[in-house]
Amino acid sequence: MSRFLAAAFLLLLAIPARAEDGYDLWLRYRPMEAAAQARYRPLATAIVSQGNSPSLNVAKSELIQGFSGLLGKPVGAGGVMDGAVVIGTPAGSPLIAGLQLPLGKLGREGYLIRSTVLSGHAVTVIAANSDIGVLYGSFAFLRQIQTRQPADHLDLANVPRIKLRLLNHWDNLDGTIERGYAGHSIFDWQKIPDYMDPRYTVMARANASVGINGISVNNVSADVWMLSSMYIDKLAALADVLRPYGIRVYVAARFSAPIELGKLKTADPADPTVAAWWKKEVDGIYRRIPDFGGFVVKANSEGQPGPRDYDRTQAEGANVIADALAPHGGIVFWRAFVYSEKDPTDRAKQAYNEFKPLDGKFRDNVFVQTKNGAIDFQPREPAHPLFGAMPKTNLALEVQLSKEYLGQTTHLVYLPVLFKEVLDWDTFAKGKGSTVTKVIDGSLEGHDQSAMVGVSNIGEDRNWTGAQFSQADWYGFGRLAWNPDLSADAIAREWLGMTFTIHPAFVNQTVPMMIASREVVVDYMTPLGLHHQMATGHHFGPGPWVSDLARPEWNPVYYNRADAKGLGFDRTPSGSDATSQYAPPVAKLFSGADIPDRYLLWFQHVAWDHKMKSGHTLWDELVVHYDAGIAAVGEMRKTWAAMKPYVDGERWSQTAAFLAIQQKEAQWWRDASIAYFETFSHMPMPAGHASPPHDLAYYEAIYFPYAPGRPDYTAAPFRNKPKDPSE
Amino acid sequence: MSRFLAAAFLLLLAIPARAEDGYDLWLRYRPMEAAAQARYRPLATAIVSQGNSPSLNVAKSELIQGFSGLLGKPVGAGGVMDGAVVIGTPAGSPLIAGLQLPLGKLGREGYLIRSTVLSGHAVTVIAANSDIGVLYGSFAFLRQIQTRQPADHLDLANVPRIKLRLLNHWDNLDGTIERGYAGHSIFDWQKIPDYMDPRYTVMARANASVGINGISVNNVSADVWMLSSMYIDKLAALADVLRPYGIRVYVAARFSAPIELGKLKTADPADPTVAAWWKKEVDGIYRRIPDFGGFVVKANSEGQPGPRDYDRTQAEGANVIADALAPHGGIVFWRAFVYSEKDPTDRAKQAYNEFKPLDGKFRDNVFVQTKNGAIDFQPREPAHPLFGAMPKTNLALEVQLSKEYLGQTTHLVYLPVLFKEVLDWDTFAKGKGSTVTKVIDGSLEGHDQSAMVGVSNIGEDRNWTGAQFSQADWYGFGRLAWNPDLSADAIAREWLGMTFTIHPAFVNQTVPMMIASREVVVDYMTPLGLHHQMATGHHFGPGPWVSDLARPEWNPVYYNRADAKGLGFDRTPSGSDATSQYAPPVAKLFSGADIPDRYLLWFQHVAWDHKMKSGHTLWDELVVHYDAGIAAVGEMRKTWAAMKPYVDGERWSQTAAFLAIQQKEAQWWRDASIAYFETFSHMPMPAGHASPPHDLAYYEAIYFPYAPGRPDYTAAPFRNKPKDPSE
Repeated sequence: MSRFLAAAFLLLLAIPARAEDGYDLWLRYRPMEAAAQARYRPLATAIVSQGNSPSLNVAKSELIQGFSGLLGKPVGAGGVMDGAVVIGTPAGSPLIAGLQLPLGKLGREGYLIRSTVLSGHAVTVIAANSDIGVLYGSFAFLRQIQTRQPADHLDLANVPRIKLRLLNHWDNLDGTIERGYAGHSIFDWQKIPDYMDPRYTVMARANASVGINGISVNNVSADVWMLSSMYIDKLAALADVLRPYGIRVYVAARFSAPIELGKLKTADPADPTVAAWWKKEVDGIYRRIPDFGGFVVKANSEGQPGPRDYDRTQAEGANVIADALAPHGGIVFWRAFVYSEKDPTDRAKQAYNEFKPLDGKFRDNVFVQTKNGAIDFQPREPAHPLFGAMPKTNLALEVQLSKEYLGQTTHLVYLPVLFKEVLDWDTFAKGKGSTVTKVIDGSLEGHDQSAMVGVSNIGEDRNWTGAQFSQADWYGFGRLAWNPDLSADAIAREWLGMTFTIHPAFVNQTVPMMIASREVVVDYMTPLGLHHQMATGHHFGPGPWVSDLARPEWNPVYYNRADAKGLGFDRTPSGSDATSQYAPPVAKLFSGADIPDRYLLWFQHVAWDHKMKSGHTLWDELVVHYDAGIAAVGEMRKTWAAMKPYVDGERWSQTAAFLAIQQKEAQWWRDASIAYFETFSHMPMPAGHASPPHDLAYYEAIYFPYAPGRPDYTAAPFRNKPKDPSE
Repeated sequence: MSRFLAAAFLLLLAIPARAEDGYDLWLRYRPMEAAAQARYRPLATAIVSQGNSPSLNVAKSELIQGFSGLLGKPVGAGGVMDGAVVIGTPAGSPLIAGLQLPLGKLGREGYLIRSTVLSGHAVTVIAANSDIGVLYGSFAFLRQIQTRQPADHLDLANVPRIKLRLLNHWDNLDGTIERGYAGHSIFDWQKIPDYMDPRYTVMARANASVGINGISVNNVSADVWMLSSMYIDKLAALADVLRPYGIRVYVAARFSAPIELGKLKTADPADPTVAAWWKKEVDGIYRRIPDFGGFVVKANSEGQPGPRDYDRTQAEGANVIADALAPHGGIVFWRAFVYSEKDPTDRAKQAYNEFKPLDGKFRDNVFVQTKNGAIDFQPREPAHPLFGAMPKTNLALEVQLSKEYLGQTTHLVYLPVLFKEVLDWDTFAKGKGSTVTKVIDGSLEGHDQSAMVGVSNIGEDRNWTGAQFSQADWYGFGRLAWNPDLSADAIAREWLGMTFTIHPAFVNQTVPMMIASREVVVDYMTPLGLHHQMATGHHFGPGPWVSDLARPEWNPVYYNRADAKGLGFDRTPSGSDATSQYAPPVAKLFSGADIPDRYLLWFQHVAWDHKMKSGHTLWDELVVHYDAGIAAVGEMRKTWAAMKPYVDGERWSQTAAFLAIQQKEAQWWRDASIAYFETFSHMPMPAGHASPPHDLAYYEAIYFPYAPGRPDYTAAPFRNKPKDPSE
């Protein structure tokens, strides 16, 4: 054995040290500890696969790669023997068919993993009704081993709760990414189809491993070129790469494409030439991509064209496109993120006002794709009032993985906690227990269709998401879209174990840090229901004083309503009455004195000296929250410092550096916000809490011309005079 | 031994297969073949390093990493023993000092590698007058081993011929790269200084390994924010990372910064407040970065501000900045790439006309940074007439590594052949043998200063340069800047051996492919002296018909002058007389009948039926060249196909895919160019050469709205109607 170790040592030295950089994501098949290898080796001796479909082949290849890496021994394809893993469908595999497994309720994507006996050998069977189901089951079995769960005596049947589990890439065709913080787009359209970057395949593996089964490839503020033949041909090549992984491609379509691309005079959905154009366009796409998923459409939103331009409803706009897609089984995701520059109504109310009356008017192959909240991906928002309010309409939940408003790359905020808060939200639409999960999985109203959409956080950065911990948001989104009942805690545990180490000292300290992280960012950015307080354009850092933007609802002052009396947006019946868009028990709660602190300033304008449940005044409570957030980031840094022994140098150091940035920026958020609000409250800082070290003018002058994520945003150089190095 | 192999096999399996992706560049310290390990192990038993400077430590660390990887055994720091490698300077190392080595002529950067005996032990000494020299020597010793050159009986003294060896990054502060084809900028300014990406260090290692000792970090079309205190603080953090590797940072400075940043009313170089502002700015930079390199300035060029705006000369503009830098030892690289929208003179003549009269007027710490040719980085250009024409001025040679005009990412063109053609060019300025090398190394006119500058091809792509073979251009640039007498062939051999394998079957076939590749691109793009024939804006693909751009000299027709009579730009005394800017023997050659074919259409307008040296008409010769280029790309593909056994899958496949793209685009260049020129020549295709498969309108309609490299270029969607997928 000592000779083996010596040889191993020499060989390891001979391989240049390659830093762990996060590229492997959670598909990190490094050798497990010896005890685990001893435990699992007998349960993964060979892969038995009958049939030869692309999906089955990638399942087999993934199992070979996973077992060989994790178990530290070569595991290959083989025959039935003790410990073999037998994969397939009854239709494709006589071995599986012979087992007469209960696959009836698994549908197209579910799988069954069962420990059984075949020809006298103890084997594990991964069976499904489709090869994609087999692939999902294969990833699940690998996860069992990666997370040291039992891999014997298994009888795991698993079916996705939500049918369409999609990422929306907001990638522009020039390679920039709207609200992207992980470098350049990974889609190198210039070289597609002639060169298909191996990263597309790695991304497909990662998506399939968590059940994501669709991606839209371009920014929802859509470039019509994406619909041109040149780009559809490129898209077809990408679809070929993704297809074995069960992933369909979708495109963000520009509503005015009939004019720009079709050279029609109008894009009016009621015009028959427009309907004919969409049909011709869609037929052309399906000739090239037979399993094309469909379109995402952002219409009449932030300058995008839409049906309102022709005095048509959102439903009429969606349906003309849906009708073109329907014969092919394609879907329209029609985004509910609309608000009008001409409508003085509280922005939080506008989408509901526009869409609710259209309930029942949308085609069956349309989803109204609704952001988790009525404003825009804030650190905390109450759930969007549309959930539960459109019983006759397919509603898709849209969440943002890219952390536009949550500190961007460098703040560690574990988003599945936020996603769960929304999913578990009780709309009371059909009485208590009418959660958002039940709305979007279709069970509340008996819809057959269901969808959940995440705005991608993927870019060309080596670790895919800019920060190591942002990978958890991608992972967690997929896991929750498959099963919204999973806990954020369980997902964090899985992800850490697969991505870093299963060492209990690591997992048991890092999971609570992740779970707490979401409330931490709320505390130091926008506590007590504050929202939309960020700086202009790039949304990086605080700007509660901003009041000079063209549209009132773009300005943070519109949302904080700070004045001599108090703080917060009165959305009770005495104010904008947005509360009335919720079911009566919810509306009552949010309009009254029992409103939870966390939503207080979202719905109510509260006096500075209002006595909070804690006994503090609002002012003191606000300061306490800001400072709690900063203190908690300090605790996160301490926790992470203690994790150094368990994590490789590169990933540990990057995370440590980012946490230091987070602490600095948390302080900036707190100081800038207090410096602004104290000009209204005129109240002293509570005891033990320091005043901001600078005056308001200092914070107002901080300016980042090139904060990432807003490629179309032209920096206004020297709007505030920058310092030169002599100052 | 079989047990060792078995153990090794198991261990290798246990490490997940990690594709070779080019990230390691030529610093690829994989285990050598057993015979080589046996040969070199006795010559690298330990590293002996006295002293503790940052540069010495990185030298030691590089040797440890290199030896351990290449030799497949742990090599560490140790004492003097047989086979030890002793590194250091006489000042820092008593061991080195005791050897009384002849270091006098090595200067600050040179090194001596000598096999000798120390305390009775056979050792290798790497000695220099500075720790940076030791680092350069360490890389040289590693290269000896990587390329299987002798590592014993050495007595190698080596001194750089050119003092300032710089890369110019044309990276914008928003992360895009002007003329960049390898993804996003690697400079993540948003996170600097709080997070320093490990890639900066890898880049520094790569640069130091080929002797590059300076980088300018931002686009020469300069953003004034780079000079602000916020960015200079960031730059200081980057300088700290690069300093141990002997690399100084430079900044592209905007000439109008005194107005934009300093809030002065003018940037007139004769205004004392302007001079004072530059002094204050520069003093501030040096307070933060004591070894700051200086500025690159693009003035009065393509819309950039400059001294002409105030009726001052280029020299007056350069000198006001140079005077601010001089007390700190800083340098101004003042670019000669100027041409005026108001000047109807042949663009090829304008820089000479403007700069030559200023010879002797520039401060000693100014370089006039001159592109290799008078137009703009074309596949082939005659050398810039300024070389040899400004004897009293420091001239720096600027070449472009980023392949703006040479097929961008996907064409395999080995640029050191082009660089050598320029370096070896005889200006005849002081008689025969007055090469560009002698002009820029200062030896022709006895200048103490010398500089060579490459426009960087580095980006965030995993392989750094977009294509595996583009790494050779970075490598070769550095090697030539260190020693312009190296042959392109020798550099290719080194690079291939270090980057791929030293297998003779591989090297002996791939070197000729690389060497030939430059003439190949000339043939299929712009044979016989044609130039500037590319499409608008992004410069991707052919556009010889383009005539609608605002300035005449932006249009390809300006350069090809195709008409009923013939083809080519008459720059003889009967035409623009640009030939007269060259020394008389050169001018005579280019104006006469003996002009080499390769420069023919650059200098002469030639009848379509002109009889060439080959006996062909010009028309036939042109077609023959285009087709020879395409055929040669076919041969390159065959060669590369045969190299498959010697190269890992990922790098082989990417290169194969790119060569296929190159062949397709070579055909496009040829067909489009012939389709245009035949509208003038009205001559039949020579026998055995096919007509273009489409008419001219087809080629004119090809349009790429998002070809990379021109981030500020707004696509004009649908200038030509794109097809929709139904067509």
